[in-house]
Amino acid sequence: MAKDFYGELQLGILGGGQLGRMLIQEAINYNVNVHVLDPDKNAPCRKLCNRFETGSLSDFETVYNFGKDLDMITIEIEKVNVDALEKLEEEGVIVYPQSRVIRLIQDKGLQKQFFKQNDIPTAPFQLISTKENLYETQIAFPYMQKLRRDGYDGKGVKRIQSTQDIESAFEAPSLIEELIDFDKEIAVIVARNDRGEVATYPLVEMEFNPEANLVEFLISPSILSFEIQVQAEEIAKKIANDLQIVGLLAVEMFLTKDGQILVNELAPRPHNSGHHSIEGNVTSQFAQHLRAIFNLPLGSTAARSNAVMINLLGEAKYEGLAKYDGVEEVLAIEGVFVHLYGKKYTKPFRKMGHVCIVNDDRDLAIKNARLVQEILKVKA
Amino acid sequence: MAKDFYGELQLGILGGGQLGRMLIQEAINYNVNVHVLDPDKNAPCRKLCNRFETGSLSDFETVYNFGKDLDMITIEIEKVNVDALEKLEEEGVIVYPQSRVIRLIQDKGLQKQFFKQNDIPTAPFQLISTKENLYETQIAFPYMQKLRRDGYDGKGVKRIQSTQDIESAFEAPSLIEELIDFDKEIAVIVARNDRGEVATYPLVEMEFNPEANLVEFLISPSILSFEIQVQAEEIAKKIANDLQIVGLLAVEMFLTKDGQILVNELAPRPHNSGHHSIEGNVTSQFAQHLRAIFNLPLGSTAARSNAVMINLLGEAKYEGLAKYDGVEEVLAIEGVFVHLYGKKYTKPFRKMGHVCIVNDDRDLAIKNARLVQEILKVKA
Repeated sequence: MAKDFYGELQLGILGGGQLGRMLIQEAINYNVNVHVLDPDKNAPCRKLCNRFETGSLSDFETVYNFGKDLDMITIEIEKVNVDALEKLEEEGVIVYPQSRVIRLIQDKGLQKQFFKQNDIPTAPFQLISTKENLYETQIAFPYMQKLRRDGYDGKGVKRIQSTQDIESAFEAPSLIEELIDFDKEIAVIVARNDRGEVATYPLVEMEFNPEANLVEFLISPSILSFEIQVQAEEIAKKIANDLQIVGLLAVEMFLTKDGQILVNELAPRPHNSGHHSIEGNVTSQFAQHLRAIFNLPLGSTAARSNAVMINLLGEAKYEGLAKYDGVEEVLAIEGVFVHLYGKKYTKPFRKMGHVCIVNDDRDLAIKNARLVQEILKVKA
Repeated sequence: MAKDFYGELQLGILGGGQLGRMLIQEAINYNVNVHVLDPDKNAPCRKLCNRFETGSLSDFETVYNFGKDLDMITIEIEKVNVDALEKLEEEGVIVYPQSRVIRLIQDKGLQKQFFKQNDIPTAPFQLISTKENLYETQIAFPYMQKLRRDGYDGKGVKRIQSTQDIESAFEAPSLIEELIDFDKEIAVIVARNDRGEVATYPLVEMEFNPEANLVEFLISPSILSFEIQVQAEEIAKKIANDLQIVGLLAVEMFLTKDGQILVNELAPRPHNSGHHSIEGNVTSQFAQHLRAIFNLPLGSTAARSNAVMINLLGEAKYEGLAKYDGVEEVLAIEGVFVHLYGKKYTKPFRKMGHVCIVNDDRDLAIKNARLVQEILKVKA
């Protein structure tokens, strides 16, 4: 990069949420000048950057004008105006991840086609443009219908049990996918820089709470078989190389009950499944994303200890000015790191923060995480 | 604390330098609203806080007006107007460390008297008000003359070899101190909260470069005898308790050639000798300072691995817009963490950043630190 980026480089981040916030915490170490665009004037990054601009991430003019005097742009959310990014790239602004990668990943249909074309294992699927198509599909009940665009945190996904459910299915371009009878959700974060260096983080496992039907917490590193770990990391590396992405890529996968790995979906940015890396690994995912987009040598991804990450969600039934119960109590437990996201208002299940629990003893890390989960609550 | 400090509390920091900057990086995790006062409009904290105010730290009115609407004030430098802090305390603003502690530590003479009164081992000394007094002292040549106030980073200290040197001695209230023939400089960081919990960090050693006559780097944890470690930590705890300080206290000590520990001086705040704790210990000194002043349970101070810290100083002969040579190269070495302080201009020996090198192998950590030292340079 021509410009000395320890002081002069102007970096734009599309999105000013918690991912941008944690990216800024790390960017401070490199004297990066950070500009943030977000529609919410109270976004978590608002007070932590050189310039904070309120505006729509999906509006061409807004994104273009935000970016045209910057040296480099990155994202903390995929739902951004890619045409503006493409134009900025043409005009010489560096956009990492590249606009073509964001365009592909924004569309779950294109993602699935990409997997198919590149022999990346994934669940059988079919693309449809209207729900009428569901009457003719070869995919057997029950199956999942997923909107091709703008699904987020479980939204935009429906389970279709039988012909009766088709009436209430989404009326929009979607993909339908065989229901996977999976044993575990697993994920690998991979980084790639512009000189083609690729580094994967150790595999992590999501612990599912069957009662709440939610990912309860994430454990790093995985204790699945060495074979599975190598295979998952190889898949993540292959995807990063096939995409020629520059930046971080989160690869979410299912491990089926018969031991097969199937790729579920991608996120081309720091990701919830990498938050444990701040305390749990030598290089955090945020530091690694910066290294990748600045074309610096990638950092060691080695685990420093066992780490369990839990999301701190707004309690059901509470809405309003956020109050945090139990912070003091959980900080008395060894190896507990609390990260609050600076969100003024809570609502049911809103991501208000996360907690990372490290311990050399894996079982104790898990036990302490359960304790934290019982004690720490976001109310209003 | 009555106020919910995860969102509502307004914290003021006197000083906006690198210590404030790293404190903010940590305060972000607790949704603290940070206000900063610093005389330099380009101070490292300027873009990272809710409010940045330019003004003198030693002016009564400026400090008082800065603080009067805040809930709590802390410092990142001792040279502040203590009368204003005392008035703020009287009016109900929480000031940690307490104004009386800052007042005592600001004056090296009062510090030494405090050591003497509390049986804390320190080098023999005498207080003088004018250099004329030097002609009558009982302390044998050579000795050190130290200004009671405003010495900083080796400034305000003179070595008096013989009667001839008295002419050029400081003409100001000073202390004179027997020259210590020390083997090593060592330090312990200790934290104390308002409920009286006290926690010490493992002892660290300063590696001295005899050629440059400068501390070259800091190594954590120390491998001095267990006896010395316990003794140093006990001294630090005793000082924290005797002072009844709330917050962090850095205790700098000499280990003499005959194995005696003598306390050199105190700093009531995060300190250069604790920077390694960000990556090297479970709880960083910045997180610990926040825990202490918020009266939260203190965090574990255990070392996570060997850590070597080196200061990144402006190269001699370079002055102007800072340029960083070798960042890319040092980031290729495992376990290297670069922290730049956001200072626009460099000058000879200005602290521009620091680097922490962690490794499970102590010798390798030291070897890598030497490598970093050879490669990384701040020029203009």
